[in-house]
Amino acid sequence: MSPENPLPQTESIWSHRVYYGETDAMGVVYYANYLHWFEQARNQLLLDCGSSYGQMEEEGLFLPVSEAHCSYLEPARFDQVIAVHSTIEELKRASICFVYRIINRSRGERLITRGWTKHACVDREGRMLRFPQWFRDLFC
Amino acid sequence: MSPENPLPQTESIWSHRVYYGETDAMGVVYYANYLHWFEQARNQLLLDCGSSYGQMEEEGLFLPVSEAHCSYLEPARFDQVIAVHSTIEELKRASICFVYRIINRSRGERLITRGWTKHACVDREGRMLRFPQWFRDLFC
Amino acid sequence: MSPENPLPQTESIWSHRVYYGETDAMGVVYYANYLHWFEQARNQLLLDCGSSYGQMEEEGLFLPVSEAHCSYLEPARFDQVIAVHSTIEELKRASICFVYRIINRSRGERLITRGWTKHACVDREGRMLRFPQWFRDLFC
Amino acid sequence: MSPENPLPQTESIWSHRVYYGETDAMGVVYYANYLHWFEQARNQLLLDCGSSYGQMEEEGLFLPVSEAHCSYLEPARFDQVIAVHSTIEELKRASICFVYRIINRSRGERLITRGWTKHACVDREGRMLRFPQWFRDLFC
Repeated sequence: MSPENPLPQTESIWSHRVYYGETDAMGVVYYANYLHWFEQARNQLLLDCGSSYGQMEEEGLFLPVSEAHCSYLEPARFDQVIAVHSTIEELKRASICFVYRIINRSRGERLITRGWTKHACVDREGRMLRFPQWFRDLFC
Repeated sequence: MSPENPLPQTESIWSHRVYYGETDAMGVVYYANYLHWFEQARNQLLLDCGSSYGQMEEEGLFLPVSEAHCSYLEPARFDQVIAVHSTIEELKRASICFVYRIINRSRGERLITRGWTKHACVDREGRMLRFPQWFRDLFC
Repeated sequence: MSPENPLPQTESIWSHRVYYGETDAMGVVYYANYLHWFEQARNQLLLDCGSSYGQMEEEGLFLPVSEAHCSYLEPARFDQVIAVHSTIEELKRASICFVYRIINRSRGERLITRGWTKHACVDREGRMLRFPQWFRDLFC
Repeated sequence: MSPENPLPQTESIWSHRVYYGETDAMGVVYYANYLHWFEQARNQLLLDCGSSYGQMEEEGLFLPVSEAHCSYLEPARFDQVIAVHSTIEELKRASICFVYRIINRSRGERLITRGWTKHACVDREGRMLRFPQWFRDLFC
């Protein structure tokens, strides 16, 4: 593993009970809402590493999404409890990739969704930025 | 009608086709989504009056919601076309009240929702502001 | 207190960390999202009473919202932790009213929002239903 | 081009004005909301072809999303008018792929987003279904 591309083994888990406002008329969670869960899962990962997205912003570091992907294996339904497992797949000079697996805890811990999001690292004005060392150190 | 409380007769109509992402597992539009429609309807009203919310902000005028109310008379369903009729009910020194009626055009033009939102008029820093004359003139 | 209008003293608390997807370009939580929180808070209240909205539906009991109200006293912002306190204000023959107070735990426990929702009690076909005794007993 | 993989040249355009509820505290449209636009764009495509998703469901045809992808090239902001161009990229026996390009009409018609969604064709019970001929004929 090169220093440019460390793959920290940190895994974070964010749990959630599905509510009506997330479902649609097919009776299942609407496909866009998984991206809301992904955000909450990566916020949790930063908290678990001793920082927070809020703190990053105070330091002038922003992580706008440049790409998102989601594979819907099985639906989630109202009142089910799901757990989003998130890890950092790739940490480059100025971009980061989070990977997510969603487990349905109300249906035998089945894996129901896989996804990932790629983010640029930019300053307040949107200019590309190298990740500072303190950020890299969070995941060691 | 007092100058402090003009009730402009402007009525604006914003039409929309219900999509899956707005419905829930009960098969009807989720109750919070009517507030999204209300925003789009009042944006339309400002456009119809020759301004826009975006232009107001450029002038340093913001209208944060201070109160919202909604009465759900009948549900709206996927693929139905609805029309939100909006008017200004009250225009005070530093607050404004919009009133909304939602008509289901796919079900005999039935009235299905009534609502209103009350907004303060503030500057960029959130300080109370009197509505400027150019704003009042929009509705004459 | 009449048997027709018991006011159970049950109070439930649902906590939540504000994420980006709930905020808007004014930097604060979008006004419709408080209604999402209200739903999650009343789901929590039913769980705390030993039932769940999912279980109610299995029993053929549905609670569509007939009216919703929200007063926005102060905004909530990204990364702040809020707590929604919910109680049952009124339990009539075939309708129920939940009341909500939102506390900003990241800003000195300030009360930032007040709201309520009124729900009808209906069966799967949408016909009015009297609340069964087992439901009333949840709150005693 | 094989009969199994026709690439209909139909392109549909769905236009929309960005409203506050779609933006986040970074001042731009929240990344999950593009998936809401994608749905509305493919609904429009079916309407333009003389059918509708509602009609498909009446015929017992459902198109749950199995995969979604989005590349965010440039942000969209409040009050900007965007146009989602959608086409059918692939129509297999029992799956369909829609491709989307979003143009920012308020910023020199710049391409700001690319995305695609893949859908299975299933019946009311969720069983795989071959697309019927009447559906294929929509795009000829």
